[in-house]
Amino acid sequence: MEQRVSLVTLGVDDLARSKAFYERLGWRGQEIEQTVFFQAGCLAVVLWARDKLADDAGVVDGARTRGFSGMTLAQNVRTRDEVDQVLAMVPASGGTATRPAAETFYGGYAGYFADPDGHLWEVAHNPGFTLTDDGALVLPDFGRQDSTGG
Amino acid sequence: MEQRVSLVTLGVDDLARSKAFYERLGWRGQEIEQTVFFQAGCLAVVLWARDKLADDAGVVDGARTRGFSGMTLAQNVRTRDEVDQVLAMVPASGGTATRPAAETFYGGYAGYFADPDGHLWEVAHNPGFTLTDDGALVLPDFGRQDSTGG
Repeated sequence: MEQRVSLVTLGVDDLARSKAFYERLGWRGQEIEQTVFFQAGCLAVVLWARDKLADDAGVVDGARTRGFSGMTLAQNVRTRDEVDQVLAMVPASGGTATRPAAETFYGGYAGYFADPDGHLWEVAHNPGFTLTDDGALVLPDFGRQDSTGG
Repeated sequence: MEQRVSLVTLGVDDLARSKAFYERLGWRGQEIEQTVFFQAGCLAVVLWARDKLADDAGVVDGARTRGFSGMTLAQNVRTRDEVDQVLAMVPASGGTATRPAAETFYGGYAGYFADPDGHLWEVAHNPGFTLTDDGALVLPDFGRQDSTGG
């Protein structure tokens, strides 16, 4: 299996609400057949009805406790100011801050928000991870970087 | 907010088990501080303890019903055979098929599997979506493509 992700699909309860949220953050997508597709670098982020997504995947959306989904997305940005700028847009856009921006143990600066369905996004400035001009994230060689580590 | 995803982090119950699963599928990553990082095209897929991830995001992992997470990943591949080949590796690797490969309404061919923690992956051949030589997915202009649509 190749080491790639082509799509991240977020199950949503109200497509219009979710689309409006991402649009208020500045995203622009295409809606077709009750699905919204956003080109996001080398992949696409997709909004689709949660019940249809569960059915498509062959799983049951049972208790629907809507707690922690066990999966998060992150967007790394180029400056600490940009972390603050993105997080500042969230409340008026219909999202919820879940952790305010703060220093991280790795020498970065990050905070989290939840979209209208509780999907979690971290917005992070991590000086140890390269962001290319076109926004790709390139991992360091951790062995080389952390010469003091085990 | 830029239209990008830098990291997809999967909360896991047993890091060694999850790392072994993705390695059996052919992935190669770096483990540092009880975290596994896989470079996956323009982003990274990260395996991290589920409880640490919830805590980092500022949310409570309450009922832990472990049902449908409400979010799926997909890997688009170049041929139908490749869909079958990837899905065939899953059971012996420690994952679970949740939907066998089948024709899709959009003229493609796709199936789903769950990783050891239930994170869902679709493996799809979709002739309408471009895959570049380096594996990036490029959405079509749906308005132009679907000239018969609304």
